[in-house]
Amino acid sequence: MITHGPVASLIGMAHNTVEKTSVTLLGLGAMGSALARTWLAAGHPLTVWNRTPARAAALAAEGASVADSAAEAVAANTLVIVCLRDDASVGETLSGTDLAGRDVVNLTTGTPAQARVRAAWARDRGARYLDGGIMAVPPMIGAPGAGGHVFYSGSRELLERHQDTLGVPAGTTYVGEDAGFAALYDVALLSAMYGMFAGTAHAFALIRKEGIDPATLAPLLADWLVAMAPAVHQTADQLRTGDYTRGVVSRLAMQVAGTPTFLRTAEEQGVSAELLSPYFELMRRRLAEGGGDESLTGLIDLLAR
Amino acid sequence: MITHGPVASLIGMAHNTVEKTSVTLLGLGAMGSALARTWLAAGHPLTVWNRTPARAAALAAEGASVADSAAEAVAANTLVIVCLRDDASVGETLSGTDLAGRDVVNLTTGTPAQARVRAAWARDRGARYLDGGIMAVPPMIGAPGAGGHVFYSGSRELLERHQDTLGVPAGTTYVGEDAGFAALYDVALLSAMYGMFAGTAHAFALIRKEGIDPATLAPLLADWLVAMAPAVHQTADQLRTGDYTRGVVSRLAMQVAGTPTFLRTAEEQGVSAELLSPYFELMRRRLAEGGGDESLTGLIDLLAR
Repeated sequence: MITHGPVASLIGMAHNTVEKTSVTLLGLGAMGSALARTWLAAGHPLTVWNRTPARAAALAAEGASVADSAAEAVAANTLVIVCLRDDASVGETLSGTDLAGRDVVNLTTGTPAQARVRAAWARDRGARYLDGGIMAVPPMIGAPGAGGHVFYSGSRELLERHQDTLGVPAGTTYVGEDAGFAALYDVALLSAMYGMFAGTAHAFALIRKEGIDPATLAPLLADWLVAMAPAVHQTADQLRTGDYTRGVVSRLAMQVAGTPTFLRTAEEQGVSAELLSPYFELMRRRLAEGGGDESLTGLIDLLAR
Repeated sequence: MITHGPVASLIGMAHNTVEKTSVTLLGLGAMGSALARTWLAAGHPLTVWNRTPARAAALAAEGASVADSAAEAVAANTLVIVCLRDDASVGETLSGTDLAGRDVVNLTTGTPAQARVRAAWARDRGARYLDGGIMAVPPMIGAPGAGGHVFYSGSRELLERHQDTLGVPAGTTYVGEDAGFAALYDVALLSAMYGMFAGTAHAFALIRKEGIDPATLAPLLADWLVAMAPAVHQTADQLRTGDYTRGVVSRLAMQVAGTPTFLRTAEEQGVSAELLSPYFELMRRRLAEGGGDESLTGLIDLLAR
């Protein structure tokens, strides 16, 4: 049985004239709850289900209809959004539901291979399938200026059909028919972010014993990283052409020659170099292979042969 | 003997009315040569010296005066800029010169401790001392819009006196009386940059076997890193207050729970996780210490106790 929240029918009525797509949402963690609220706020009739019911009750008060089971939630609407803990949870949750004719949009974090297997699994059950990778933390959901967006891959037709609905929580970026690509882009960008965070952790650690206010370093750090981020365009250009010396401004040999200063500074400041050393080690390996005239692009070859 | 280049006297005459400060520059590597050209272009009389004379000859043709020895170059002008290979070269090069009354600006890359020792060494010889850390590659020198700048620390009076000259190649940022701070900020920012580069290398490696054009990933990557770089402000705020849960949007426990997806994706894509693993390992250590409700700031404590 679906329990309609106190204001659900009013919202439904108020928005009937613009015919907002009805949405089913499975999973009300921090991200699922943020998604739910943006759809409710935008006037989309919303049916929710969560394994533990407390979060669903909170959303009922905001206008969501609460289903007693995942099967009931899936039966309620054509568009079924899934935002669960992991791919295993998706399998468990959907296994007792009838997916035939459903438009399944899976926003659960997972690997590209998991997304591909899940896409085939859903299609075998008569569903259309779109996979999504959310490039945002919950506070960025429904905040257009916050820079969040969602990568989508799989059925382009499905994204186009539901663009008006899927575009509500965050911008949409379609990255290909291969259902695994959204997860791949998601993991690639977040991996790069963790690299950047590792670098900034090392930077803050370096100033610790000097009594320098971290808020003095922060804007310098942010500006420098923003200035250096576009280096990825040269990397891409070199990867495309296969010429890793193309437009090089700082030769690998010179950069390797500079690494002792970084390691010695870490030592002087009492900071472990464990986050920097692996990259410097790759630099040395590439130099030993004869890449001294290249930029740093050749290191990618050492990671993925 | 100082050999004046063919156009040196003309440039000197043309600019005499505005009295541009005369500059001595020791060291004409890629960076030194770039610096030399911006001062020449701005009309500063310039005396240069380089250990191997070929690069000096090229600059002579552009108007520089070439000294036969470092001692002669130092004797030529009050303002002496040093941009050599490393701190040992600075010691060797300056040891035979008379530094009394000289304004020494050392732009040689080194560690904070090296800069502090060098500052005391120069003051013992009667010189004023300013240390600089160049946040730019040579093509950014003399290109105001390119985002390069130079950190300075040591004698503030010296920076103020020569602001008009030192500001020619790139913007100037003074970071304190402690002569080691310019090197410290320099190394901190470049270390963070290498972390970011490590992250982007991993990201490009991940897409390699999929036939995805790297130029498709590059703008997404650059935009995401630019959007995430301001996270350092929250880190600074947490470090200042000592409250690492302050304003947390993504708990460490949740982020650790996400790491298997990153490692499994790397494995699926045939990519070594050696650049990501050390950061994930720190995350796990901090979680084990009870930091699950924190953001990632606690990892800095593990690097610098």
